[in-house]
Amino acid sequence: MKHPLALVETDDVGADTVVHAFAVIRAGASIGRGCIVHPHAVIESGVVLGDGVEVFPGACIGRTPKGAGATARTPDFAPRVVIGDGCSIGPHAVVYYDVEIGAHSLIGDGASIREKVRIGTRCLVSRGVTINYRCTIGDRTKIMDLTHITGNTTIGADVFVSTLVATTNDSSLGRLAYSDGDMRGPVLEDGAAVGAGANILPGVRVGAGAVVGAGSIVTRDVPAGKLAFGAPARVVRDVVPQEK
Amino acid sequence: MKHPLALVETDDVGADTVVHAFAVIRAGASIGRGCIVHPHAVIESGVVLGDGVEVFPGACIGRTPKGAGATARTPDFAPRVVIGDGCSIGPHAVVYYDVEIGAHSLIGDGASIREKVRIGTRCLVSRGVTINYRCTIGDRTKIMDLTHITGNTTIGADVFVSTLVATTNDSSLGRLAYSDGDMRGPVLEDGAAVGAGANILPGVRVGAGAVVGAGSIVTRDVPAGKLAFGAPARVVRDVVPQEK
Amino acid sequence: MKHPLALVETDDVGADTVVHAFAVIRAGASIGRGCIVHPHAVIESGVVLGDGVEVFPGACIGRTPKGAGATARTPDFAPRVVIGDGCSIGPHAVVYYDVEIGAHSLIGDGASIREKVRIGTRCLVSRGVTINYRCTIGDRTKIMDLTHITGNTTIGADVFVSTLVATTNDSSLGRLAYSDGDMRGPVLEDGAAVGAGANILPGVRVGAGAVVGAGSIVTRDVPAGKLAFGAPARVVRDVVPQEK
Repeated sequence: MKHPLALVETDDVGADTVVHAFAVIRAGASIGRGCIVHPHAVIESGVVLGDGVEVFPGACIGRTPKGAGATARTPDFAPRVVIGDGCSIGPHAVVYYDVEIGAHSLIGDGASIREKVRIGTRCLVSRGVTINYRCTIGDRTKIMDLTHITGNTTIGADVFVSTLVATTNDSSLGRLAYSDGDMRGPVLEDGAAVGAGANILPGVRVGAGAVVGAGSIVTRDVPAGKLAFGAPARVVRDVVPQEK
Repeated sequence: MKHPLALVETDDVGADTVVHAFAVIRAGASIGRGCIVHPHAVIESGVVLGDGVEVFPGACIGRTPKGAGATARTPDFAPRVVIGDGCSIGPHAVVYYDVEIGAHSLIGDGASIREKVRIGTRCLVSRGVTINYRCTIGDRTKIMDLTHITGNTTIGADVFVSTLVATTNDSSLGRLAYSDGDMRGPVLEDGAAVGAGANILPGVRVGAGAVVGAGSIVTRDVPAGKLAFGAPARVVRDVVPQEK
Repeated sequence: MKHPLALVETDDVGADTVVHAFAVIRAGASIGRGCIVHPHAVIESGVVLGDGVEVFPGACIGRTPKGAGATARTPDFAPRVVIGDGCSIGPHAVVYYDVEIGAHSLIGDGASIREKVRIGTRCLVSRGVTINYRCTIGDRTKIMDLTHITGNTTIGADVFVSTLVATTNDSSLGRLAYSDGDMRGPVLEDGAAVGAGANILPGVRVGAGAVVGAGSIVTRDVPAGKLAFGAPARVVRDVVPQEK
């Protein structure tokens, strides 16, 4: 069902999909069955939505990166986005080109995901989260509100990153000529958990199942299964297993 | 005055209200007198706006929570929103269903307010703030830019929460099966003030008129009328009364 | 080229400019040559876009500040915005009235810039950044994701402010009657760099070429050319020149 005031330029729209007024779907986009595209959503050419995807008002899928002027990187991307079955893309979320999101993941209101990012299944990227270029995020990982994931970050499966966590990849604080190969984001291994307001420095590895306390500044690797906190963070003990 | 390119499905629109092009107002919404609904705003069924409310471009009022897939909670909500007289809802702000906002409150650009939240009169919820489910916020309280209020938080009247403040309700960092009753947000009593970048841990109570310094990590209750700061925060003295 | 479903009320649109469906451009706006105005963008009266400006979906240029109810300030502004040649305004970014942005600057997705702000050329204001009233920002300065710049802040040229940095201008934490003259934001001099998650207190000056470490709480001035970090931040040594 396409509202007469929707602008739908593609014929590739599955059965039982609803496109609301003032939505824009470009030629070359592919929309699955049973999707809902709310008013003012924009779905660009090359975007592939699975079945049962809900795209909330104002979400933009298929943003072209801009490299001119102030930014350090020249964007390099494939003009394609793949969104798995059952995903939800929140109001005003922005998904750049060259992103893949696994089935049944939720992208929160106003979140923004840059090019060359791969997100697993059943993930939560919560409200206002910004993810920079070339990150990978494993299945069932949750990244909470207003956290920033820097470029070249690797996050495993079943990871929990709390709210307002800062990650960085540039020890020079922008004072050197930009060389993409020098930008080393953190690595968060499977099952790691990072507390609210923590600060993970460039290239730091948080091991499998390790926990970083709220507000910590993590300047060195945290071994698997250890709890670390403080500024700078120190390992204080083994993580106590949680009953499930 | 309804622009011919606005989609207004309800007849319940007060006198002297202006609805701009490309706005969407659903059947079952009720709009007061003298309101302004800017382009690309979306007002869903069951939303009640008082008189003199201004809804800026792209704001969404009446979002349905999503519980499928990655999220831990099964949403439970009444399909209703009440916005008091004279409120301003900023561009791209998102107000979920089952929210009430008192008269003359301002919701900032891109702020997002989840279900079961009650906000008093003359409040400021500033730009980019995210408020999670089942919070109460008293009259004249101000929450500044990019702060996150976690689920089950109770905030009194005349409270000031500065910018980039983190609050949390889950000591297990997401590593336990979700049980809503276990999630204890902070309590900020009347007249409390929380400095920029502070981090308030689950269940912590900040007493009436107490002050938390910028960047503090608050792991224990702060008694009424005391100033605390540090990581972890310690009480350092009584709050000095401010001349008004 | 204007899409028939765009609402363009001005005749002052340059050659080779494309206005997409559902965009709104008001009478009294002036649009340069070779611009792209994406769907759902809103450009108000009094806005002047240079040549080659790209305005992404949902961006709002020319927002009127609101002073009623909860906010402390009575807005005072000129109903005018000037955006220089080659700028990019991200999806859902909000630019208030009385803002000037120099040529070839990028404003990120969902960023919000209040009235009386002046931004130089080739700047980057990244995703989710909020800039409050009456700030000046010099040329080639970069402000990274989810940072908040408080009112009355002065930032020089070639400054780098990392992600999730908090700045404040009100030592009373909102507990005094508002007097605009008392609100002293920080000063960041030319070439200064501020690490992720740092917290810069009211009126603090970070000198030319000085560096503030990640997560620092800066309570006192940092002299030019010095590296400071910690909570509270202490000067630890001279900044080591970086090879370029």
